[in-house]
This record gives sequence, C-alpha cells and structure tokens, in this order.
Amino acid sequence: MKRVAIAGVGLIGGSFALALRQAGFDGEIVGVSSPRTIAEALSSGVIDSAMALDEAAGWADLLFLAQPIRRIVEMIPLIGASIGKHTLVTDAGSTKATICAEAGQHIPAAQFVGGHPMAGKETRGAASADPSLFRNRTWVLTRDCDHPFVDWVRRIGAHVLILDAEEHDRTVAHTSHLPQLVSTALACTVDGVELRAGGPGLIDMTRLALSQYEMWEDILATNPEPIDAALGEMIAALGAMREQLRGAGLREEFERAAKMRRRLVTPVQLR
Amino acid sequence: MKRVAIAGVGLIGGSFALALRQAGFDGEIVGVSSPRTIAEALSSGVIDSAMALDEAAGWADLLFLAQPIRRIVEMIPLIGASIGKHTLVTDAGSTKATICAEAGQHIPAAQFVGGHPMAGKETRGAASADPSLFRNRTWVLTRDCDHPFVDWVRRIGAHVLILDAEEHDRTVAHTSHLPQLVSTALACTVDGVELRAGGPGLIDMTRLALSQYEMWEDILATNPEPIDAALGEMIAALGAMREQLRGAGLREEFERAAKMRRRLVTPVQLR
Repeated sequence: MKRVAIAGVGLIGGSFALALRQAGFDGEIVGVSSPRTIAEALSSGVIDSAMALDEAAGWADLLFLAQPIRRIVEMIPLIGASIGKHTLVTDAGSTKATICAEAGQHIPAAQFVGGHPMAGKETRGAASADPSLFRNRTWVLTRDCDHPFVDWVRRIGAHVLILDAEEHDRTVAHTSHLPQLVSTALACTVDGVELRAGGPGLIDMTRLALSQYEMWEDILATNPEPIDAALGEMIAALGAMREQLRGAGLREEFERAAKMRRRLVTPVQLR
Repeated sequence: MKRVAIAGVGLIGGSFALALRQAGFDGEIVGVSSPRTIAEALSSGVIDSAMALDEAAGWADLLFLAQPIRRIVEMIPLIGASIGKHTLVTDAGSTKATICAEAGQHIPAAQFVGGHPMAGKETRGAASADPSLFRNRTWVLTRDCDHPFVDWVRRIGAHVLILDAEEHDRTVAHTSHLPQLVSTALACTVDGVELRAGGPGLIDMTRLALSQYEMWEDILATNPEPIDAALGEMIAALGAMREQLRGAGLREEFERAAKMRRRLVTPVQLR
C-alpha cells in the first residue's frame, strides 16, 4: 500500500492520514475535498496534494471515504465508473447497510469493505485531526479482508471488529443511537421542571442532548428499523420498571444494569 | 444556635459538621449514631461527643437527621416524645412527603422543616466527610423558616430553594430519580449486545447504572407516584420519537433538548 486517497479530509479523514504517518507510512497521501477543505488540510500538513475523485479512484491503492453518510452514498456510483484494478475502497460511515448496498451495485465485491472507526471528538475539521484518535478504539469492518489496509488499521492502534452491515447497524442502534435518543428524550421530558433541583446525574445523562441534529440526520435516516426496535426495547424496559416499582422493587434491574456497566468498561472502551 | 445534634454521622451529617466549623460555628456539635459510627466520627474530629437520641432532642437548638429515609421515619416519633421547647428538627432525606407527613404527626409544625441537601459523592461514612460538600449545591427546604439554621446553610455555601414536600418529590422524580432509572433501563436494554461496539456515549449514559440498589430502595419506595408519572412521560417522549423517526425527523426534539441542557448547566449545577 503506497498510494492513499482520502475523500473528505475532516476530523476522521485527517486523523487517519496523521495516524498513518505516525505509524510509519511513507507513501503518498492525497485529499479529495472541496477547495476550502483541501486548503485547510494542506496547511495542517495532513495531505501531500489534492486530486479529483475520478482520478483518485483510478490511482489509489486505498480510497478512504470519510464524508457524511449521504455524501458517501452519492460518491459510490462515481467511483464505480473510474475505479482502478487494484484499488480498495473503504469508508467511515456510522451506518453500514445503506452504504454497503450502494457499493454492492457499483464496486466489485473484492474491492470494497465497509468500515466504521468508532472514534470522534467535539471539534471538527482537519485542524482538529489527531494521530491518536483511533488508539484503543474499535474499528468495525463489514467483512474479513487481507488487504494491507487492515494491517495499517491495527498499526494505528485500533481494534478490528468484524460485523456484517446488518449486524453492525443493529448493534450500534443499541450502543450508540439509543443512548443519543434516550438523552434527547430525557432532556425533553425534564424540560420545564425546576432545574435548580437538578444534580450531577441529570447533567451526565443529558450531555449527549447537546449533539447537533446535523450530525445525526443521516444516521437516523439510514438506520430506521434497528433504531425503532431499540426504542421499542427501551420503552418495554421502562414499562417493566413501572410494574416492578409497584411490585417487588427493582433490585434485579439494578444488579443486572451494574453488571452490564462493569463489563462495558474494558480497556477497549476506556478512552 | 449554639447546640447542634447530628443523627447519623455519615457523609452528609459529618460534612455538615465540618462545614459548620469551617464557616465559624463555635458551639457544641454532638453525634447520635451507633457506637461504631460514633467512634469513626470522633476519630475523624467530626463531632465533639455523643448523646442518646432522646437526650439530644431535648438539648439541641438544631437536631439534624442525616440517616437513610426509613431510619428518619422511624426516629421521628421518638423525637416527638422528648423534643425541647426551642429545638428545630430538620433532615436530609432524598424524598420529603413521607418524612414531612410523619413529622406532622409527631413534631409541632414550627419546630420542623424538611430538607434535602442535593450533594453527595461516591464514598460514604464520616471518614469521607468534606466541609465543601454543600458549596454551590442546592439545599431544598420544605418551607420558609427564619431560624438561624437557614443562615448557616447559606454560610456553608449552599443555595436555599423552597419547595413544599409534594413539589420537591415531583421535581426530583424528574431531575434525579428518572435519570437514575433511565440509566438502569438503558443498561438492561443494551445488555447482551456486542459491547466492543460501545462508545463514550454509552459509557456516560450508563454511569448511574453502577448505583447500588440499597441507596435507592427507600427513595423509590417513598416516591412511587411521581416516579411512575415521570416514567410515563419518558415513555411517551420515546414513543413520540418513534413516530417522528418515520415522519418528519427529530430536528425539533434535538433543538429543544440541547436548549434545555444549556440552561441546566448554570453555576449552581456546575459542580
């Protein structure tokens, strides 16, 4: 792997570039983005040069799509028309079924692997790029793949987890989308109450409610069924609690929840 | 106010004693607790001496009940039998209606004010007592009261908020009990899912799920109706989200939630 093209040189794309460099990658890294983003990425030293998408698709050993989901879906047909014989295409979209279905129609199966690096931070753009962003984070791939790209993912410190697109989307509906929506719903429910009587627990539980809708619109639009199912399970859990409150109490629920939480915070999740 | 008796010299009672001293209180502070707790409180320098409950109730200018809710409810009739003419009784229970109703039967109305200092930390016992525990925290009182006790609450850095018992319980059902139960329910819902695909959001949202049931049993038992109502509102909010997901999207919910959260984090809540 000598030639890497990154489409969308923002936080994720830029951090991937910096991480590759820090891990010893000495090939070329080009950016495919708007002029403004390219200017920022060049001045941050994140990329060596810029290229148009069709040219990059024919030139690169690895084409990494690090844009918002909707943009990735729009680019895939264009890539299919100009992809080189040895180019592997991957992406960083937070949902996988829609993207993988689109790729299935336009890119040879052996030349595409869906990806989801489970990393991020509050700030955006190439100026926020951080070579250690993926360290100790999970990087989901939608299939086993013996391309050197996967070795580089490990070399930059990420933990590869293979989940097919549907399994990924069902899983993150629970581990990522549900926590976001629960935080938003909790904030809406508590809205209007005397907030001077709010404590640290409420502050923690509504932190995610600060998320911008723009960051979530594509995710929600491309994963509606798993999210609907997860919301249904959450509603059922709260409904069962109401019953138990009037009945035998919630000891079992508290113990099960605490056990789950202790299992959650393994070295992989401790960031 | 020269004579303070603290029943239950754990984290809250002990911190109140230390906070009074730090704020310049130079009267006597006695503890009413089990021999073991008294020994710990004496060796931590939290109290000057120990006294039996009936004696303390007759002697003190202020009798502060800082035990678990159930224990406070058990003690109130005993206090009623031996209370002095000038003793004000207050408490630190996390729910107020049950305690205030019990007090109403056994203690003259002018000699009781319900209280809820909204402070705490992970560790318990007099050894964890901290004179700054109440600084910038809300201290709910169930009625206006011009006893010097209220001045001392302010002098130790707390913000007094007057809410009657029912209003308090309805409020904390939303601001404290609901966040706890939502975190527990979320952890139960996500239990069994591939946790390697869990991120920082899930970790934040399930932190409260580590709470011990023993700390919550009395709270849930003494506030069932407001909690049931709050759970019902949360279920309705999640149900509305399911509808909106299939419809116009969640922009409005995200914006409302973010606005609520920004309002929540005022200097009083930033701890």
